[in-house]
Amino acid sequence: MEKIISIDAMGGDNGIDVTIEGACLAMKRQKELSVIFFGNERLIIEKLKNIEYSKDKIEVIHCDKVVEMDTKPIDAIRRVGKESSMWGCINAISEGKADIAISAGNTGALMGLSTIILRTIDGIERAAISSLWPNKTSHSVVLDLGANVEVTSDQLVQFGILGYSYAKSVFSKNDPTIGLLNIGHEEMKGTEIIQDASLKMKELFSRDYIGYVEGDNLSLGKSDVVVTDGFTGNIALKTAEGTARLIGHFISDVFGGSTMGKLGYLIGKSAFRALKDKMDPRELNGGVFLGLNGLVVKSHGGTDILGFSKAIEFSTKLSQNDISSEIKKLIAKKKDYESKD
Amino acid sequence: MEKIISIDAMGGDNGIDVTIEGACLAMKRQKELSVIFFGNERLIIEKLKNIEYSKDKIEVIHCDKVVEMDTKPIDAIRRVGKESSMWGCINAISEGKADIAISAGNTGALMGLSTIILRTIDGIERAAISSLWPNKTSHSVVLDLGANVEVTSDQLVQFGILGYSYAKSVFSKNDPTIGLLNIGHEEMKGTEIIQDASLKMKELFSRDYIGYVEGDNLSLGKSDVVVTDGFTGNIALKTAEGTARLIGHFISDVFGGSTMGKLGYLIGKSAFRALKDKMDPRELNGGVFLGLNGLVVKSHGGTDILGFSKAIEFSTKLSQNDISSEIKKLIAKKKDYESKD
Repeated sequence: MEKIISIDAMGGDNGIDVTIEGACLAMKRQKELSVIFFGNERLIIEKLKNIEYSKDKIEVIHCDKVVEMDTKPIDAIRRVGKESSMWGCINAISEGKADIAISAGNTGALMGLSTIILRTIDGIERAAISSLWPNKTSHSVVLDLGANVEVTSDQLVQFGILGYSYAKSVFSKNDPTIGLLNIGHEEMKGTEIIQDASLKMKELFSRDYIGYVEGDNLSLGKSDVVVTDGFTGNIALKTAEGTARLIGHFISDVFGGSTMGKLGYLIGKSAFRALKDKMDPRELNGGVFLGLNGLVVKSHGGTDILGFSKAIEFSTKLSQNDISSEIKKLIAKKKDYESKD
Repeated sequence: MEKIISIDAMGGDNGIDVTIEGACLAMKRQKELSVIFFGNERLIIEKLKNIEYSKDKIEVIHCDKVVEMDTKPIDAIRRVGKESSMWGCINAISEGKADIAISAGNTGALMGLSTIILRTIDGIERAAISSLWPNKTSHSVVLDLGANVEVTSDQLVQFGILGYSYAKSVFSKNDPTIGLLNIGHEEMKGTEIIQDASLKMKELFSRDYIGYVEGDNLSLGKSDVVVTDGFTGNIALKTAEGTARLIGHFISDVFGGSTMGKLGYLIGKSAFRALKDKMDPRELNGGVFLGLNGLVVKSHGGTDILGFSKAIEFSTKLSQNDISSEIKKLIAKKKDYESKD
């Protein structure tokens, strides 16, 4: 099925050097993909001169301004405004010109603009950032990863609805399991907000809700979806990244430290490469903003051409229709039992 | 310098099978160490029959009751009470019979009893659980790891005092650096509680306070001390453990999956062993309860003989006097500037 992705060409630490080449790489691999680049037309066309691509699959829309990596969300909305490449890129999905928007730009600004332009789905107070977290056999959907520092119990339940709907679509599962991140599995653990959310999620997701999951359960894949607030989610995500980097450092340390280690490394090189691939953060580049009337994908700001192309390829697998119809169904179910309480 | 460690012989998933042998193993390695076992005298003496040890270094004090792994803290205090091995073990430091207490039992109960028996140091409202977090070159002190789910900004500053004093003693550093865990390094990030704590810590620790640190900074060792609330700290710790386990699984997966991988593994075996040692959680077994009038060390409940012996050996390196004199100095300094505000 053909997909049109709108791309904030100016976003990210490396701007068009990464976004344009990344998009062209993705289009080489996925034939049904076409893109709209938003950004400085002259620079984009200059860049495209050196790249092989099919002209009918690329549209360029000029935007005068750029949201910088350190622009505050409020300034991205009020000061930089509608002329930015980020705004244009998101607006394209609001206008139905593209299926999904993608940017490697400033996360806070992207979330701010996305919320202003697309608005949240009825019944969802706040959009959340979700990501696929690797485990032994597959992945889990984890959210929120940083958009909402403080949340109510009802918002946690809403994140549950978002994550569950997303998991159903992205994993093609009829009844994904869902858990709530906490510091123990006993009922009395955690804050009142979490305890209250747990009761509500039990009612809403019935058997698919498996209760509390702990930090180590994230990587053990205890449930298909893990719900948490944006503060905890962000700390957990970055802690996992830091741990993986530390172990990577230990590995090169011990295998570079002795002759036998070096030899073992040379002989087992393909295994080491497989390990590196498994741990390559570029393979899973792309946080999805859920809860809006339109899908926005956030690529890592510092990613490279391969990483950006992976984020685009990943985007093409998402279906806004599937996800939002499930979200609406669950919100109706939630309203239904709330009216009975 | 001679150290006497009081041991809750009945605590942990494996009780005396681990605690007695672990203690005897530690005593073999550390000649200045002697222990007092609290627990079922008959069982302990029976167990000791099969182990080599020097009689003058072991005392056994009989306790009738045991705090089980699932006993609630309030029940450990009110129902099980003073006759438990856990109570006896902590009480020994309150009575000056031992230098440090150690238990592999139920964390919540151990913290509850420790607080009741030892009381917090004046100026410290709540005790915190701290641990040494490995990084590239050394370790950081991270706290709180689960004792205090919700905290005030002032309690975060108090945790800072505890962690800083502990780091000074355990790393023998005059001016350790200290950071506050947050989801970004910019001033406006995080909750109001964190922002307020940051201002206070800047005043108290001046140049040693490096501001906010993020989740990945834990493993990168950006500061000697990292302060957070018990909810976030617990999630971060378990997330790191889960990530390390997942990578361990990936490693055996890729190296067991091909002939060249297996061969590389065989040749690089010593390097793999070094890696395994570096990642062995038993090497760092021991969370220290800080802020009380006496040091209590919590060993992992599921640890084995080696792990328990490591926790004991680690305990012998701690000095309650050094740590608490520094804590008192910092509390006086804090009171001083608070009176000026």
